[in-house]
Amino acid sequence: MQVIEKISDMQSYVRKCKLDGKTIGFVPTMGYLHEGHLSLVRIARKRCDILVVSIFVNPTQFGPGEDFDKYPRDFGRDKKLCEQENVDIIFAPSVEEMYPKDSVTYVDMAGEMTKVLCGKYRPGHFRGVMTVVSKLFNIVQPDIAVFGRKDGQQLAVIRRMVSDLNFPIEIIGGETVRESDGLAMSSRNKYLTEEQRKSAPALYKSLLLAKTMIENGETDSSKIVERMRDYISNSGDFKIQYIEIEDAGTLVPVDKIRNKVMIALAVFLGETRLIDNIVV
Amino acid sequence: MQVIEKISDMQSYVRKCKLDGKTIGFVPTMGYLHEGHLSLVRIARKRCDILVVSIFVNPTQFGPGEDFDKYPRDFGRDKKLCEQENVDIIFAPSVEEMYPKDSVTYVDMAGEMTKVLCGKYRPGHFRGVMTVVSKLFNIVQPDIAVFGRKDGQQLAVIRRMVSDLNFPIEIIGGETVRESDGLAMSSRNKYLTEEQRKSAPALYKSLLLAKTMIENGETDSSKIVERMRDYISNSGDFKIQYIEIEDAGTLVPVDKIRNKVMIALAVFLGETRLIDNIVV
Repeated sequence: MQVIEKISDMQSYVRKCKLDGKTIGFVPTMGYLHEGHLSLVRIARKRCDILVVSIFVNPTQFGPGEDFDKYPRDFGRDKKLCEQENVDIIFAPSVEEMYPKDSVTYVDMAGEMTKVLCGKYRPGHFRGVMTVVSKLFNIVQPDIAVFGRKDGQQLAVIRRMVSDLNFPIEIIGGETVRESDGLAMSSRNKYLTEEQRKSAPALYKSLLLAKTMIENGETDSSKIVERMRDYISNSGDFKIQYIEIEDAGTLVPVDKIRNKVMIALAVFLGETRLIDNIVV
Repeated sequence: MQVIEKISDMQSYVRKCKLDGKTIGFVPTMGYLHEGHLSLVRIARKRCDILVVSIFVNPTQFGPGEDFDKYPRDFGRDKKLCEQENVDIIFAPSVEEMYPKDSVTYVDMAGEMTKVLCGKYRPGHFRGVMTVVSKLFNIVQPDIAVFGRKDGQQLAVIRRMVSDLNFPIEIIGGETVRESDGLAMSSRNKYLTEEQRKSAPALYKSLLLAKTMIENGETDSSKIVERMRDYISNSGDFKIQYIEIEDAGTLVPVDKIRNKVMIALAVFLGETRLIDNIVV
């Protein structure tokens, strides 16, 4: 395994791979890898010759007052984990390498998809995501790229972007990996106190509750959201940011459930913001 | 020579070329080809194995009330000219192929570069240009792409975008090709009446006037612009939109000339908007 820090080195390496007819798989991450990331790495590993994992905590997708500075980092551990998974290249650029001072171009989206759910509470977040992912795609030039379904809105936004801008890349969504009690794995779970950690599985349980209601014939989104809100509020020190039900493809909010929907939530547990979702 | 209309066909073709180790050169155009375009085609032809010319009148870079509908088109003639220049592929997609109804992603730029010069008078123009060029780059995946220096601001914006988004593409600027009397070649010259056509070379002459002033030691931009303004106003039925002197790299307006500058102008001759520039 090789660690590459320079964009030009990464692009030269890719050029050689392409000339050799090798396919490239890509898993972009912000590091502090957990089983969720590793499951994406394993999906990609099976589907390409050369596997690139990027580790880059992208400042432009954090808002003012968000946790960019304290976002957990442990490159040594990440490196070991990648080695165990037979990753070929870790691409780990510095912030200065990715964003020289005179850099001004961005990628963004008209319409509602980046304005609902997390987009409503994190203005500029998806512009940051789309821009950095576009850059990484142009640097790594993968044939396939794997993103986690836990960031459900991010996955939908990236699929939309790849289609709109004609990136020649297949996007694969990897299932959310959960702790044995149901909590979705996240680098931010590390922030939780012992007590918070104990109440955190209520989020997934509320999603399962919603699933059961839909399976039992409930089609009224507001009733489901209300039931989830009650359940979460009674399960610990939660401050709910949103609970929403949206069309799974377009992320347009749905009042009457007819097709595939994504039920998504964002909740503060103490200071820590957690998100989760399921598609039903 | 082959004409390709579908994005997926173009991408399959490119995939095969890459596997064969062939380099791809690209000249994006809006068609109605003239000697200016052909000079770009010849530059690209010398530097690649497979030469792709795109012909697409891009609606998103025209503002309301601009000349999208009446922009001159002659695909039969364009095809013949490309054949004569040994073009391998004409990529000529429809508007619906390039912009499906649900398409929402765009590429744009913060900062001043797209807000000065033409950007001031054509809001949204450079967003349209950046978005379509990003799409074309992802479709054609060229090693080199050639753009004309006549659209000097466009060239600067594209160079900035390619650098910021890390497109693995070398951008080459081709010299402006002029009629024997100095008028810069443009598909829009076709709009001119005989009389307008006769007065049109005054634009280039005013740029040469500015060049001479600078070579003779003049460093005050406002004096040069004033002299150009006088010259043009006395040479025909011109309405000046802008005459500006900017840093040739950053397009930041320059009051005192010290380094390489671009002297650029946009002028209405009757209904027809003409642009020209030189770098001194």
